[in-house]
Amino acid sequence: MSHRFTLFTGQWADLPLEQVCRIAQDAGFDGLEIACWGDHFDVDKALSDPAYPDSRRRLLEKYGLKCWAVSSHLVGQAVCDAGINERHQAILPPRIWGDGDAEGVRQRAAARMKDTARAAAAFGADTVIGFTGSAIWHMVAMFPPATEATIERGHQDFADRWNPILDVFEAEGVRFAHEVHPSEIAYDYWTTDHALHAVDHRPGFGLNFAPSHLVWQDFDPAGFLYDFRDRIYHVDSKDARKRLDGRTGRLPWGDPRRGWGCVSASHGDVRWEDVFSMLRFIRYDGPVSVDWEDAAHLKAYDISPRSASFDAAFGLGH
Amino acid sequence: MSHRFTLFTGQWADLPLEQVCRIAQDAGFDGLEIACWGDHFDVDKALSDPAYPDSRRRLLEKYGLKCWAVSSHLVGQAVCDAGINERHQAILPPRIWGDGDAEGVRQRAAARMKDTARAAAAFGADTVIGFTGSAIWHMVAMFPPATEATIERGHQDFADRWNPILDVFEAEGVRFAHEVHPSEIAYDYWTTDHALHAVDHRPGFGLNFAPSHLVWQDFDPAGFLYDFRDRIYHVDSKDARKRLDGRTGRLPWGDPRRGWGCVSASHGDVRWEDVFSMLRFIRYDGPVSVDWEDAAHLKAYDISPRSASFDAAFGLGH
Amino acid sequence: MSHRFTLFTGQWADLPLEQVCRIAQDAGFDGLEIACWGDHFDVDKALSDPAYPDSRRRLLEKYGLKCWAVSSHLVGQAVCDAGINERHQAILPPRIWGDGDAEGVRQRAAARMKDTARAAAAFGADTVIGFTGSAIWHMVAMFPPATEATIERGHQDFADRWNPILDVFEAEGVRFAHEVHPSEIAYDYWTTDHALHAVDHRPGFGLNFAPSHLVWQDFDPAGFLYDFRDRIYHVDSKDARKRLDGRTGRLPWGDPRRGWGCVSASHGDVRWEDVFSMLRFIRYDGPVSVDWEDAAHLKAYDISPRSASFDAAFGLGH
Amino acid sequence: MSHRFTLFTGQWADLPLEQVCRIAQDAGFDGLEIACWGDHFDVDKALSDPAYPDSRRRLLEKYGLKCWAVSSHLVGQAVCDAGINERHQAILPPRIWGDGDAEGVRQRAAARMKDTARAAAAFGADTVIGFTGSAIWHMVAMFPPATEATIERGHQDFADRWNPILDVFEAEGVRFAHEVHPSEIAYDYWTTDHALHAVDHRPGFGLNFAPSHLVWQDFDPAGFLYDFRDRIYHVDSKDARKRLDGRTGRLPWGDPRRGWGCVSASHGDVRWEDVFSMLRFIRYDGPVSVDWEDAAHLKAYDISPRSASFDAAFGLGH
Amino acid sequence: MSHRFTLFTGQWADLPLEQVCRIAQDAGFDGLEIACWGDHFDVDKALSDPAYPDSRRRLLEKYGLKCWAVSSHLVGQAVCDAGINERHQAILPPRIWGDGDAEGVRQRAAARMKDTARAAAAFGADTVIGFTGSAIWHMVAMFPPATEATIERGHQDFADRWNPILDVFEAEGVRFAHEVHPSEIAYDYWTTDHALHAVDHRPGFGLNFAPSHLVWQDFDPAGFLYDFRDRIYHVDSKDARKRLDGRTGRLPWGDPRRGWGCVSASHGDVRWEDVFSMLRFIRYDGPVSVDWEDAAHLKAYDISPRSASFDAAFGLGH
Amino acid sequence: MSHRFTLFTGQWADLPLEQVCRIAQDAGFDGLEIACWGDHFDVDKALSDPAYPDSRRRLLEKYGLKCWAVSSHLVGQAVCDAGINERHQAILPPRIWGDGDAEGVRQRAAARMKDTARAAAAFGADTVIGFTGSAIWHMVAMFPPATEATIERGHQDFADRWNPILDVFEAEGVRFAHEVHPSEIAYDYWTTDHALHAVDHRPGFGLNFAPSHLVWQDFDPAGFLYDFRDRIYHVDSKDARKRLDGRTGRLPWGDPRRGWGCVSASHGDVRWEDVFSMLRFIRYDGPVSVDWEDAAHLKAYDISPRSASFDAAFGLGH
Repeated sequence: MSHRFTLFTGQWADLPLEQVCRIAQDAGFDGLEIACWGDHFDVDKALSDPAYPDSRRRLLEKYGLKCWAVSSHLVGQAVCDAGINERHQAILPPRIWGDGDAEGVRQRAAARMKDTARAAAAFGADTVIGFTGSAIWHMVAMFPPATEATIERGHQDFADRWNPILDVFEAEGVRFAHEVHPSEIAYDYWTTDHALHAVDHRPGFGLNFAPSHLVWQDFDPAGFLYDFRDRIYHVDSKDARKRLDGRTGRLPWGDPRRGWGCVSASHGDVRWEDVFSMLRFIRYDGPVSVDWEDAAHLKAYDISPRSASFDAAFGLGH
Repeated sequence: MSHRFTLFTGQWADLPLEQVCRIAQDAGFDGLEIACWGDHFDVDKALSDPAYPDSRRRLLEKYGLKCWAVSSHLVGQAVCDAGINERHQAILPPRIWGDGDAEGVRQRAAARMKDTARAAAAFGADTVIGFTGSAIWHMVAMFPPATEATIERGHQDFADRWNPILDVFEAEGVRFAHEVHPSEIAYDYWTTDHALHAVDHRPGFGLNFAPSHLVWQDFDPAGFLYDFRDRIYHVDSKDARKRLDGRTGRLPWGDPRRGWGCVSASHGDVRWEDVFSMLRFIRYDGPVSVDWEDAAHLKAYDISPRSASFDAAFGLGH
Repeated sequence: MSHRFTLFTGQWADLPLEQVCRIAQDAGFDGLEIACWGDHFDVDKALSDPAYPDSRRRLLEKYGLKCWAVSSHLVGQAVCDAGINERHQAILPPRIWGDGDAEGVRQRAAARMKDTARAAAAFGADTVIGFTGSAIWHMVAMFPPATEATIERGHQDFADRWNPILDVFEAEGVRFAHEVHPSEIAYDYWTTDHALHAVDHRPGFGLNFAPSHLVWQDFDPAGFLYDFRDRIYHVDSKDARKRLDGRTGRLPWGDPRRGWGCVSASHGDVRWEDVFSMLRFIRYDGPVSVDWEDAAHLKAYDISPRSASFDAAFGLGH
Repeated sequence: MSHRFTLFTGQWADLPLEQVCRIAQDAGFDGLEIACWGDHFDVDKALSDPAYPDSRRRLLEKYGLKCWAVSSHLVGQAVCDAGINERHQAILPPRIWGDGDAEGVRQRAAARMKDTARAAAAFGADTVIGFTGSAIWHMVAMFPPATEATIERGHQDFADRWNPILDVFEAEGVRFAHEVHPSEIAYDYWTTDHALHAVDHRPGFGLNFAPSHLVWQDFDPAGFLYDFRDRIYHVDSKDARKRLDGRTGRLPWGDPRRGWGCVSASHGDVRWEDVFSMLRFIRYDGPVSVDWEDAAHLKAYDISPRSASFDAAFGLGH
Repeated sequence: MSHRFTLFTGQWADLPLEQVCRIAQDAGFDGLEIACWGDHFDVDKALSDPAYPDSRRRLLEKYGLKCWAVSSHLVGQAVCDAGINERHQAILPPRIWGDGDAEGVRQRAAARMKDTARAAAAFGADTVIGFTGSAIWHMVAMFPPATEATIERGHQDFADRWNPILDVFEAEGVRFAHEVHPSEIAYDYWTTDHALHAVDHRPGFGLNFAPSHLVWQDFDPAGFLYDFRDRIYHVDSKDARKRLDGRTGRLPWGDPRRGWGCVSASHGDVRWEDVFSMLRFIRYDGPVSVDWEDAAHLKAYDISPRSASFDAAFGLGH
Repeated sequence: MSHRFTLFTGQWADLPLEQVCRIAQDAGFDGLEIACWGDHFDVDKALSDPAYPDSRRRLLEKYGLKCWAVSSHLVGQAVCDAGINERHQAILPPRIWGDGDAEGVRQRAAARMKDTARAAAAFGADTVIGFTGSAIWHMVAMFPPATEATIERGHQDFADRWNPILDVFEAEGVRFAHEVHPSEIAYDYWTTDHALHAVDHRPGFGLNFAPSHLVWQDFDPAGFLYDFRDRIYHVDSKDARKRLDGRTGRLPWGDPRRGWGCVSASHGDVRWEDVFSMLRFIRYDGPVSVDWEDAAHLKAYDISPRSASFDAAFGLGH
């Protein structure tokens, strides 16, 4: 196994980046997937202060770490969402939220995504991971039924709002990797197909493969990898598990009476050997990011600095 | 087996009621679950013309049919929904839609639900079936996450908007039977529990048991019946089936690449023997409504006038 | 398909035998499996009155029916049971129960089983179906654990009590067909193996194949048929179904909150096509008995007099 | 994860308690669940010699261990059992067995349970774990069927025999934690419901949660925890696994041709992540006892003294 | 449902075609899928006697029947097979077998396939159904492993031998519909993909959809239909069922100890509602052929002349 | 656990045997299963040079290793195979292949198997593991169907070719352990039964239990062990896993789009606890061989020299 493993810093946003670097080095990671929130990677600063990207990079190098991807899920969500409300306010930077006027929020979010591409390029990361939002999720999510025209309008809105962003991405040589997920324009196999079509399969738009969202929707993660193999731009090793007792529901998080939740890789229903076997087969050579749900426990782990540890965590020791 | 079987007229709204009566009599039904749309049961007329309910009833009697429940899903949906949009316009009567102003639509829908209770009472039906809508479905349906406060606010909104309606129901001696369904305030087992609590388990608010919506969410319909046995006010024999091929998604309807859809009773994943066994055990003695998805094919069926036919359809012949 | 189908009369014990004959003829049965209780077949009378067996046989012939097997489950249960209590009193003839003294009951039951063999021979039926009882079921049923010595003692008790009975059976040219069932000496695959060994595979002792008791114990009925193919002396087409909702228990009957129950053939978890395919393969040519759980509903059935009906009921139309 | 883990000493009854303490300390346990047999905790001595409980406690403290619960399964079984036979003799102390007269055994067992409560109080343990026995298990275990009156009588017997015992428990401030298990009055979900009702949900009577007995009966352990959350007095981390090959039976232990057996935690069919997730949710803060089936192998384990080891054993590392 | 149903005559090859026509008319079929063996459709005669095709067609018309497809599985098998042996001799016409020299047989079979296309065209059927054979099946069927070069060579052989045949088909306006099946060049999903590629997706080569061979290989028939939707040239409603008892094997036919076998439609593991739903979705408008495994039993069926019967047989009544 | 674990040297054939010995000693193995190819064990040399077997044995002893079984799969395959082709050439020693004439290859392979028995005896190994080949696999592998006569002829051929070989085995006191596997005369449960019968259950012919080939064919490995318990001569701990996504096929190896593949023990679908539990039950006391698919990764493993490691690898720590 020769995958490069990176630590996603989003769960550690309360710690200074240097401390996270130290932990990652001790744990044997090859690099970081840096979150564009907290102090870890400041998009504004990266654009206003030419020395900033370089200083961040040198900080990583000091700990033997690299960065191939930055994460910007939260801002991306606001680019297309129809309803902009307190849930968005809770996750957006104040400058993007502004006065909370929906269209204003969307446009500021779109502008920030362009800046994120520029900042990533300056920093030397070739991939930005995130969500797209969706103008129609609240309509397709159930009843009353959405018409085909409504669905089509949603994909057009997605294309209209993201194509200008993707123009910047492609100009900067950076790729956007959308995480297929309910609430987004592409939330399952066939809507992924639809969304890729909506932007004409342009190279700037691909996928962040996070199988946790696939397994509870009853998809086969390995088949998904194969069918969208030319658009797998990043891999995020999140897992999920279902409990079916005849009463469990779908929502919200963290309540074990409800049927499923995200868990750390290898504790859920994702068959990781199949995933890694397929990643090799489609010759995916990008990083595999580890998203520790409860970072506070990492220190309790017995993570040796040898890369074999990651193989073992995924049951890949042969 | 001594269940009374009724035919739901919603799928036949294009035919005059008398013709539907004739078909139902031929097919051996005991009565109708009449839809409050098309010309089948006109709520306005029932309230403005004292002779109307009686004439409708006599029409049924002419064909040996009774009516214990009327259906008003579409109007109920608008009572609480946060977003009122083209999907609602497509299913609401023009007078309820009016100028489409959201709060206006909600209030006109609420007033119509009160009138529906009055009309049902005048007609002699003791149950109105429908949806509640939800001020928070679009928030709980996925990401960004809704806070507990938001969820609580949604249930308060439900109680605030439906309690005055239920006051009329209880005054009229009529019960509202909510159909547990995604998009509604009560969409699964635990939200049903929550919603019943929000209206203090008042007797005017109960459930229309439609197992089709339960099975694709992985609930056990028979267990649901037992746990909510004192609130099962009506039974609707709809079925659903899943197809899992590793790629199938959840939405929208009618596209077989997508994982599940509603089908006529006994063609899906509902285990009807378990359902009927539990109905007997909890001593449910109300009607069982049959909702033929594609009414045009009914004539092709070999439905004898003997009630044994319904038993056979559900595999209940012993 | 050329199986002979018989109607088990036990569920109709409240009707005179002639009336049951008429129903069976109308329904197209080839014969009856007659219960040795009610007035259907009186063992005492068959032995004391030489004309009785013949008159019963002529009654059947009048309706074009035959009889290859008589049923005596209830008396057989008392032959070995350790505890003889109110449950036995409820199912035994008063003369067998007598004063209720346990060993007395067991011996009277054993004597009656010998008489049943004699009566069956006189009547011309070559098979008696029943239970064996068990001196150790209450010990092996759970905790505290039974020792191997206890288990061995139970099988020895079975052999000691049944060998003299089987001597009479073999002398009369009649076979005993034990129904594998919890509470009996042979209650699953391996105890069947053990019990056959305990009586040295003597030809007088075989099996009544009733798959209902096998499927809820997770056995494969078709594999059971194959492995015990030389001891399949009778087939009883009973079915059973499980409902698993995370809470369902095993006992008692008729409460749908509890996990499983007997149902009429083809309404349960038995895969009848596999069963009939294997019956053909092992060249079983005996009767297939139909045990209608709720005989009162038979008249509601659309049972044509053609034998094709039975094929259809088991999904065997090809 | 902050659960306290205790080692159940019952499997080590051949070793002096001090040696078990040493092993437990080395293995990083927080305490012991002490068995009231062997020399580990002598109920008689605890009542007759006031210094004994204290000396035992100091022994534990010497090894940094605590004790919150003592175990008395074997004596409890005899309190209600209808048949008292060689299986009981094999597991009871000679003084309880005495002359083996059934009612005498039952009464001596009941007296000993009262003493156990007193001894536990003296020792400072607030929970006694055990079985209740059942006057009707041998009747409900199968055929002939038990009537509702018989079942009711069994629960009355349970209440009559255990209420006086529970009076002592409550007076001593100690709780009895019944282990739901076939052979006991409460052996599944609904009989647990029934038994709690039979003693009016008095606080002295609760449950020892041992999921091994639940999974092979097809219950959902996590749902069981939620529904009986106010009566979960202790947790025993035993596991079980089924093997279904079409022939496997239910009994007895240790024979792999037979379908299931107890195994150490995480080697069976219990989904421990769901169990621990639910324990957190219902705010269970008692000890989690580890019952090593084959204690002789413990030394071969690589158990570090850090509590993280237990998390890892249950796959709870995040 | 407006599918045209045809009866496959291969199982009735012992009856004169006119008798089969009478049966098919009585049973309500729309037409026949005529086998090119027995006297049903004689390819030689069709080419040598210009009146023959017309007379056969008029025979069908006399009974209100049409023919859209002829079947030639047996000859097709010999076109590519590496080993030509007694198994082929048993199924080939003597003139094709000749002296049994392998290459001679292959070439005569290829010539016959060309003639079959010509005969079908003369007869007015636009589809010929059959097998391709495979030069490498015996190599890919297991061990020792076949190299990629061997596999490639097999597909090249297939293309080399079938392209000249397909030239005739395309010239005649007839399509060849290969039945995906072990032993053939295309035996599963990915080899179907490979084989279509090997002949450049030329329009003369498509598929006969027979889901029986897909389900026991764990394919999803509906997904197969969707992915190869432009090559579904014919549908054959065969079914198959598996029995898993821990011992069942794969071969040969008709022994129920062995894990699976072909059964008539709706008696197996194919989910026909999903299949028909997908056929509608991909707008398949060709015939659906019914292949009664045991034609002798057809008369026992209660097949009414109304087309609704076929819907019912597939559970499609709504 | 007291099983002896051996390392199969076949995957390390590129390394000198001494280096493999060093690795095996470091990893805590008890011995080697030596492959009769590469330089590991040279059959010719063992027969021509009396000192060779002894020197090999002393080499093992130097590293504390023993050898109870040698492996000769590749040569055995050629003894019966009907088609001898490039696939065989690729795996046979040049001297066995010779001019490639099929019958010549078969006879040289048979002679070599006799010599392998002699060499094993000289070396002190009492078991030779291998394949039998099959004269009919290519016929039974699918269509056209093989007749019973053909199948019988295949078993006769197997007996005719292997009995003389087994004569040598038995004379030398060595047993042949056939690995049940597609392509061989015994490839599933029932063909194993058939093959054992074909050679009259002679003691020289038994089985190498490799559950990887059983699980993907849906067999129960533990039941297989029990039923053939007197013929389990060796155990090879290979594993396999299936992935079912609706499209996955059966062949060839290494392509994850295709449904299954061999993996190292405990990474697949074999339930090892059941296997080891049954091995104990049937008192198997031979070695358990470990076949590392990708030996190059062994050094990355954290294999301590204590035998507990192997228990842990199979989840057998209790």
